[in-house]
Amino acid sequence: MTRISLEDYRQQFPSLSNKAYFNFGGQGTLPRPALEAIYRAYEYLQERGPFSTEVNAWISKQTQLTREAIATELGAPPDTITLTENVTFGCNIPLWGIDWQAGDRILMTDCEHPGVIAAVREISRRFQVEVAICPILATLNQGDPTAIIERYLTPNTRLLVLSHLLWNTGQVLPLPEIIACCRQTKSHKPIQVLVDAAQSAGSLALNLTELGADFYAFTGHKWLCGPAGVGGLYVRPEALETLSPAFIGWRGVVMDEAGNPIAQKPGGARFEVATSAFPQYVGLQHAIATHRTWGTSEERYQQICQNSAFLWQKLAETDGVNCLRSAPPQAGLVSFKLTGGISHKQAVMQLEQQGFLLRTILDPDCIRACVHYFSDRAEIDRLVDAIAQL
Amino acid sequence: MTRISLEDYRQQFPSLSNKAYFNFGGQGTLPRPALEAIYRAYEYLQERGPFSTEVNAWISKQTQLTREAIATELGAPPDTITLTENVTFGCNIPLWGIDWQAGDRILMTDCEHPGVIAAVREISRRFQVEVAICPILATLNQGDPTAIIERYLTPNTRLLVLSHLLWNTGQVLPLPEIIACCRQTKSHKPIQVLVDAAQSAGSLALNLTELGADFYAFTGHKWLCGPAGVGGLYVRPEALETLSPAFIGWRGVVMDEAGNPIAQKPGGARFEVATSAFPQYVGLQHAIATHRTWGTSEERYQQICQNSAFLWQKLAETDGVNCLRSAPPQAGLVSFKLTGGISHKQAVMQLEQQGFLLRTILDPDCIRACVHYFSDRAEIDRLVDAIAQL
Repeated sequence: MTRISLEDYRQQFPSLSNKAYFNFGGQGTLPRPALEAIYRAYEYLQERGPFSTEVNAWISKQTQLTREAIATELGAPPDTITLTENVTFGCNIPLWGIDWQAGDRILMTDCEHPGVIAAVREISRRFQVEVAICPILATLNQGDPTAIIERYLTPNTRLLVLSHLLWNTGQVLPLPEIIACCRQTKSHKPIQVLVDAAQSAGSLALNLTELGADFYAFTGHKWLCGPAGVGGLYVRPEALETLSPAFIGWRGVVMDEAGNPIAQKPGGARFEVATSAFPQYVGLQHAIATHRTWGTSEERYQQICQNSAFLWQKLAETDGVNCLRSAPPQAGLVSFKLTGGISHKQAVMQLEQQGFLLRTILDPDCIRACVHYFSDRAEIDRLVDAIAQL
Repeated sequence: MTRISLEDYRQQFPSLSNKAYFNFGGQGTLPRPALEAIYRAYEYLQERGPFSTEVNAWISKQTQLTREAIATELGAPPDTITLTENVTFGCNIPLWGIDWQAGDRILMTDCEHPGVIAAVREISRRFQVEVAICPILATLNQGDPTAIIERYLTPNTRLLVLSHLLWNTGQVLPLPEIIACCRQTKSHKPIQVLVDAAQSAGSLALNLTELGADFYAFTGHKWLCGPAGVGGLYVRPEALETLSPAFIGWRGVVMDEAGNPIAQKPGGARFEVATSAFPQYVGLQHAIATHRTWGTSEERYQQICQNSAFLWQKLAETDGVNCLRSAPPQAGLVSFKLTGGISHKQAVMQLEQQGFLLRTILDPDCIRACVHYFSDRAEIDRLVDAIAQL
């Protein structure tokens, strides 16, 4: 097939027209077809509802189509997917769904997001669960994260919490190895794996069924370029019955003829609570469909890596810039430090004023630039020039 | 002041143009200014972000403005308000936030929503908490709900869960009396009150500070006519420290200079989790602003009651219709049974085909028609004619 030119393809993303965008790990650029689908959904709801038999059937259908679009993209059966408001909500579902016993232990890496850290701490406090932190930050350029995690697995460890793609350094953790290690470790109860996939869903090529993580929490609004307010959770079929829904509402239950809740819904829907921003579901469907017109998730991942290698190489050759990684990145995140004396916060502000959107990371103290498969080499060149001028 | 004519006012609601709408208790009709504000917000986010220092500041500001708009509407200080995805999420925050001890007891009415019932049952199972149901359905036309609740309060009762405005029969529970009764009852621990305000926020004239309920969970997408996906929870300042946040994310925590979570946020924001559909926040602000151009919440409530009395009176005079209430409704919900043999489901389907949007209720088996302050007498007349023809 003849692929559409990059220039033409990028026309679909209104936010790319007036800036050089490197914040896909914060929020992705919504494609125009997704925006228009959201607007059409609002107009449809007002025209045919907003609350009617017809609209309620439409909402059920769109919810299912969204589940299916996500499932196809992530390589999982649709009924393993729970739709959530965001990735953190998805992490909280297993954290509050496990039947914790005092003395159980959670192992977490030293690179997790503050929101997840705070949630794990509360679980620890409420249920007298131990929390241990294993140091994998230092394995960015040397050492073996699997070996470190293995060293920290104890017989009372019940859950490993880690990111697939580290939000601070851009390292991809070798999840298949790590999961195998958890399965092989002798412990009082099976060691389950909760993955914060904020940065990996929509950037890595995923097959969640093969990967075998128990819980994989993601969002639609970063690398998948959907609207804010829609994310999800994959629960491995074998792990489904190990969780009890915590936050519960009408969407998660089956009702009898008198409207009494009598059972949990069979699949991932059991963890869904109540009314959501349904037009945004349609937006995410269209965002995913847009990506698929460009290529498979494997093709997109390969292009992301080519683009990040290009950026990394240029930055590595620039005076006053130290890339955190000593080899090309494993995905779209490129983290670097400036050595010329300007603070990273100031640098990001100055770049933003010039139309280059990046962000700071506090630990380790650095700047993070994200490139997507549709990032443009010319804008990467301009970014590196602007950084060199700081 | 000269008020805009009802006909002109109703022009602002696109969904009113092609039907007779009586489902405000399911979802409110979004005013055009709210729709346009949502669209503008999306365009703004793409133009200036979607992730940038400027946009992040805009999100913080809009979150605060939404909190303030809701607070003003409900008669409460802004920092008592938590923004949530929906009313059920708001109910789950106190349910999972209370430090339950085995043997504690929850008292709930027999008119609560299935989602809330299911959540309470799970709390009961997890924490060995007793649940009792008190029969207030039968007090719609006679009897005293406060006296019944009082009879069910025991020394181990810790939480009363009830709706302010019953979603099935439209009864308004005398909350000030009921709350006073809970405060005066001797029990091991203070008896707190969790109110499901799905039907009351945006229809009753509220002053939550005066009302004194501990927890008041509401949604923006029903009587407030905002977009689906935004709701909230009021927590009485004196009750704030009695709850621990359960589902936790970056929005609820204070971070130090290295990005470590070190404390809960001071007010209701501590219960907020992570990224939401922020353009919808702006939509809700504009929906509330639209209502305020028409009149105060007291004026709107009075008009709702006039409209529902008009509908109730007409229905009461119609052969084959039995209104559940023997006196005019206390708010906008009018529930009735058809005695002519047609099922309520069939009747609602037939009415929907004729452009009249209502819904069935399963328990008690009836049809529910909702009128708002801007409902039109001519459409009410047409509805009653159509019902008479069934």
